[in-house]
Amino acid sequence: MMGKQKDHNNRIKLSIVKIGGNIIEDPASLEQFTDKFAQLKGLKILVHGGGKHASKLESKLGIPTRQHQGRRITTEESLDVVLMVYAGLLNKKITALLQSKNCNAAGMSGADANAILAVKRPVKDIDFGLVGDVVSIDASILQTMLQAGIVPVFCAITHDGNGQLLNTNADTIASELAIGLSSDYDTTLYYCFEKKGVLSEMNNEDSVIKHINKERYRELLEKNIIHTGMLPKLHNCFRALESQVSKICIGDMNMLDDEAKNYTTVTL
Amino acid sequence: MMGKQKDHNNRIKLSIVKIGGNIIEDPASLEQFTDKFAQLKGLKILVHGGGKHASKLESKLGIPTRQHQGRRITTEESLDVVLMVYAGLLNKKITALLQSKNCNAAGMSGADANAILAVKRPVKDIDFGLVGDVVSIDASILQTMLQAGIVPVFCAITHDGNGQLLNTNADTIASELAIGLSSDYDTTLYYCFEKKGVLSEMNNEDSVIKHINKERYRELLEKNIIHTGMLPKLHNCFRALESQVSKICIGDMNMLDDEAKNYTTVTL
Repeated sequence: MMGKQKDHNNRIKLSIVKIGGNIIEDPASLEQFTDKFAQLKGLKILVHGGGKHASKLESKLGIPTRQHQGRRITTEESLDVVLMVYAGLLNKKITALLQSKNCNAAGMSGADANAILAVKRPVKDIDFGLVGDVVSIDASILQTMLQAGIVPVFCAITHDGNGQLLNTNADTIASELAIGLSSDYDTTLYYCFEKKGVLSEMNNEDSVIKHINKERYRELLEKNIIHTGMLPKLHNCFRALESQVSKICIGDMNMLDDEAKNYTTVTL
Repeated sequence: MMGKQKDHNNRIKLSIVKIGGNIIEDPASLEQFTDKFAQLKGLKILVHGGGKHASKLESKLGIPTRQHQGRRITTEESLDVVLMVYAGLLNKKITALLQSKNCNAAGMSGADANAILAVKRPVKDIDFGLVGDVVSIDASILQTMLQAGIVPVFCAITHDGNGQLLNTNADTIASELAIGLSSDYDTTLYYCFEKKGVLSEMNNEDSVIKHINKERYRELLEKNIIHTGMLPKLHNCFRALESQVSKICIGDMNMLDDEAKNYTTVTL
């Protein structure tokens, strides 16, 4: 079967792609992205967020959007909103769009088939409300789906196994899936957003840092070059790489093209 | 394995249960229903609607709910609402609740894994808008899921394969699933609502007609005994029975109990 190359540990290649809100919000970008994702060879999983859309619906419904340092505080009311927007509207639209491009997508949350189990984040200084920290991935059910030719499309929702759904960071879901599946698959994790990669000058799209390893990361940190929004992403990257994930790519949707070169690759 | 009895054609037993809106709307009823459904032995699939909840959200958002003879007309705006309510809010809440009761539920729409393909209903006298008539079921992917121990939970959404999601009657989804799977499974279809069964006197819950076959159906029609809301349901029943579905049961949630007796059974 095409695209099922194996690595030296006999692991089949798997791509896990996380797309950011700006790509989903804009119909033309979503169309373009789904084209590229549908054409991506081999086994693959998509993970998406949708926070901006959720905030819009909250404002229409008169529900206050509460945030702490840019992170959403999830009340019961706002959990209902993210369920509607992430798991309903966006997840099904992306799935139907991929289906129309011959990609056998299946929209999922972490509750579905118990794929991603989480716990409500313990309250320290701040109570983030109904927010989940991932505990485990059911690799076996995902293997069954991937083997059946299905492309799981995850929204940023998990559950605690006791009936409680939890709002969960999409970047984290992507890296936890990559970690959970990397003992069986040669996994590449793509963080796909509107910028070309990690930039050495924040507003200069031509300043993509092509390759970051741990040493270079320490250098960049010392020189204070990395944009603060990128720090948790890179921190997640090294955690994933230390847990057998093969490679992490950060960039815009063009990095999914075969001949793509202009994006950031992170390795150990 | 428990509950995997086979019929004389060597087909494994499968239960397909459709629950009505009144059960979903009320948290206590939903809790009770999911207990019973989780305990139901053997392979099973759940199908749910949620029209009342969708109408409430439409009214909050100032979207007019348009109906023709009790059937929803689905505009683009109201499709977004049913996607949010059926596929997001209700489907994930039911799934997480079942997961908490050791039932390995996976919420799905017809777009997911291309499980249910439909066409937009052709416009005759009335344009029902983005409403789907089921064309086909992918029995093979459902078999894969059932064999993996997954319990599919379908909301009343399908797709046309060209990227368009479609609002689809939940009763029809249940009967089409039953028909599509009945060559491989000994399928019983349960229509579960707030009444005890098909009643011979509309407001008398003690007047359950225990058994309806084609002959009795004709008699009841002639005597004008069947409540008009029940007619399309029964029409669907005979269509399903003529397509190899083994048995259809109509009643309240107690009919899922092992020792249940007071509900309507429909056979050819």
